[in-house]
Amino acid sequence: MKILSFESSSASASVALTEGETLVAQSFQNCGLTHSRTLLPMAEALLANCGVPLAAVDGFAVAVGPGSFTGIRIGTATVKGLAFGLERPCVGVSTLEAMARGLEGLEGNLCCVMDARAGQVYNALFTLEGGGLLRLCPDRAIPLAELAEEVGETSQILVGDGAKMCYTEKRECCPGLRLAPAHLLYPTGYGVARAALPLFEAGRAVSAQELDARYLRAPQAERVRKQKMGGTSK
Amino acid sequence: MKILSFESSSASASVALTEGETLVAQSFQNCGLTHSRTLLPMAEALLANCGVPLAAVDGFAVAVGPGSFTGIRIGTATVKGLAFGLERPCVGVSTLEAMARGLEGLEGNLCCVMDARAGQVYNALFTLEGGGLLRLCPDRAIPLAELAEEVGETSQILVGDGAKMCYTEKRECCPGLRLAPAHLLYPTGYGVARAALPLFEAGRAVSAQELDARYLRAPQAERVRKQKMGGTSK
Repeated sequence: MKILSFESSSASASVALTEGETLVAQSFQNCGLTHSRTLLPMAEALLANCGVPLAAVDGFAVAVGPGSFTGIRIGTATVKGLAFGLERPCVGVSTLEAMARGLEGLEGNLCCVMDARAGQVYNALFTLEGGGLLRLCPDRAIPLAELAEEVGETSQILVGDGAKMCYTEKRECCPGLRLAPAHLLYPTGYGVARAALPLFEAGRAVSAQELDARYLRAPQAERVRKQKMGGTSK
Repeated sequence: MKILSFESSSASASVALTEGETLVAQSFQNCGLTHSRTLLPMAEALLANCGVPLAAVDGFAVAVGPGSFTGIRIGTATVKGLAFGLERPCVGVSTLEAMARGLEGLEGNLCCVMDARAGQVYNALFTLEGGGLLRLCPDRAIPLAELAEEVGETSQILVGDGAKMCYTEKRECCPGLRLAPAHLLYPTGYGVARAALPLFEAGRAVSAQELDARYLRAPQAERVRKQKMGGTSK
């Protein structure tokens, strides 16, 4: 089954074409341009250069969060549009799991971190062992200070757009932190595909209408509004 | 320094744009199309989508072999043309080292293998340890049987377009063999860039005219001709 997978949850963007677990083609970029301008042309160039027509794609996958609200919305909307137009199934996966999947082959504890602003990070912890990936906690928004306390002196490979910040700010109190290799530091389309494949195979794909983003937190504007109205806000 | 790196030595093709050790953008494909058709369009789409004009590239790098004669020639000729036209320095690196560099972050012995036909493989052995890459032998063309004997029961991560063949044919007599993760199985433009960067930094880049392929073996036609003429051939 040919799957076209999209990742645009943070600063970088990536598209991958896979056939089962085989990577047929992938594009990745982290050059500071907006995903609304770059994501679809990346997919178009990738398919054209492989000689694969869009109609030959059997399903679409996308990282649906957590991450940048705009980035997630661009990725999700792109896949909704493609899947709706072509009447294909789609699967949304955790951005944090997608980045963990991109590190398969390494061994050790993975600390996936995305900058969630306001002193918080989006985080999930995994262990990579003997080729398998074990999730240790659900995706969460957590203050960086709290994450550092939890990690303590354990050995952790940092990955994600919050990795460098976390390393810079916390390596003194968390001496076990190290950065993932530069070319594996950000989530890729292939990581999305690897996370999505078991769901496609288990018949857990959804329609374009059902696909939805998973922000984990309410957007800033809604949080401010709730605070002003005296409600509680995470 | 912005480096545009090319890899087309075997079945797959890849282009990467780097800035120091940072991966700015990368395209990879392994879809069976000829590199003469796909390589330059990949580079063009990558730069266009990043908003980086070709004239902003400071140097070019390419995997110059060993590998497919045609593939190596396409990569080398492409970089010669670009570097000559733009008057930029270039660096040629070993395809086997480039694929090893793409596995940085993993730990263990690396057995880089490319199918050299006629029962032979192009091979080099490396060790990855504590983030560093140590070369254990020079690039060589070696009968697969001889390589299997040398490897014996040691633990080895196989990488390259000969990895699956080597694993299938030799895993019984070499029980320590395992395949690199699917998305890291083939050399990438980033691997080329990582191998080339120290040479650029040490002032060891060359001109377009000086850049040359390193085939390791004479082409089939030349070997046959030498044999017919009574000469020796590797």
